[in-house]
Amino acid sequence: MQVVPARRGRAVRLARGQAIRIVNTHGSQVVDTWAFNADDPSEFMSMEHLHASLGSVFPKTGDALYTNRRRPILTLEEDTSPGRHDTVIAACDVHRYRSLGCTEYHDNCTDNLHAALAMIGFPRTETPSPLNLWMNIPVGPDGQITWGEPLSKPGDHVLLRAMIDCVVVMSTCPQDMIPINGANCLPVEVHYEVTG
Amino acid sequence: MQVVPARRGRAVRLARGQAIRIVNTHGSQVVDTWAFNADDPSEFMSMEHLHASLGSVFPKTGDALYTNRRRPILTLEEDTSPGRHDTVIAACDVHRYRSLGCTEYHDNCTDNLHAALAMIGFPRTETPSPLNLWMNIPVGPDGQITWGEPLSKPGDHVLLRAMIDCVVVMSTCPQDMIPINGANCLPVEVHYEVTG
Repeated sequence: MQVVPARRGRAVRLARGQAIRIVNTHGSQVVDTWAFNADDPSEFMSMEHLHASLGSVFPKTGDALYTNRRRPILTLEEDTSPGRHDTVIAACDVHRYRSLGCTEYHDNCTDNLHAALAMIGFPRTETPSPLNLWMNIPVGPDGQITWGEPLSKPGDHVLLRAMIDCVVVMSTCPQDMIPINGANCLPVEVHYEVTG
Repeated sequence: MQVVPARRGRAVRLARGQAIRIVNTHGSQVVDTWAFNADDPSEFMSMEHLHASLGSVFPKTGDALYTNRRRPILTLEEDTSPGRHDTVIAACDVHRYRSLGCTEYHDNCTDNLHAALAMIGFPRTETPSPLNLWMNIPVGPDGQITWGEPLSKPGDHVLLRAMIDCVVVMSTCPQDMIPINGANCLPVEVHYEVTG
């Protein structure tokens, strides 16, 4: 198993048919996740297109995850958690932490995305809205959003199968100012492995 | 009053403090709406950032509408309609109509955005997820999305006030294959005016 250290990002190339298992090692960690077409960075997994394709804001086991060109890039093949993953909230960024009161640099998922892509030499792209694995954001009947704690338990995993050659990026969300990563606001590492 | 013809896009420059009144002339027309920082096209109104700022997927009268740098670009100052505007569904595009069965080119909001920006010489940018004025997409308690008809009536308007110098783009959604623009699936024109 490979590690995504706490507060960091990692990018992984998957050939079509390969899969990545992402393990919520401690059960409480949100993982912002992106996927890009390996041959064209302008095509990527897109939450706003996914909503239309799924007819839902919550993907569930068996669902294909769609790109901004409306074709599947990944399939959510396994999910041992209660299946609560957010698709409506942007990746955190320096502006977010500034608005929460930070006066110095704070690690953030947006910068983690771009650093992770740079580590594997993949072109820098725009910042798509991420699939926030295990981030628990209920949407109420009148549209209100609640910032919940993850419903997952230690060792829960998702398996994402590549439908095309792609690059998957994960960021262990460094949010430690609101309890999105659990009540103790402690970002931690997660693990992953690529399978055939 | 200026017109946005049926199935087309228009871009308008607003100085900080100016406002645009967008009128749903026939009451049934969805208007995909974007806003870009006039001095930097890489900053734009962003639905995924807006969700975090508002704590809701439905903006209401008085709400500031945020950019991907987490600052207000517009304020929803007036809204005579029931206030149901979608923020979770992507702009339609050629891929969407192909998936619905179209075999020839179909007008779409994504192409309308880029054509409208070209008409005023504004740089082509990425395609942010739009604020879909009057598009009625309830989100159920378990996340399911319903494709409703607009709740607005003829003559309803919104007034969007510019918080910074910006470019606002409107597209009269050409969707005529599902009843998102009313039961008769007939895209029509809307009107707008810029006020001091």
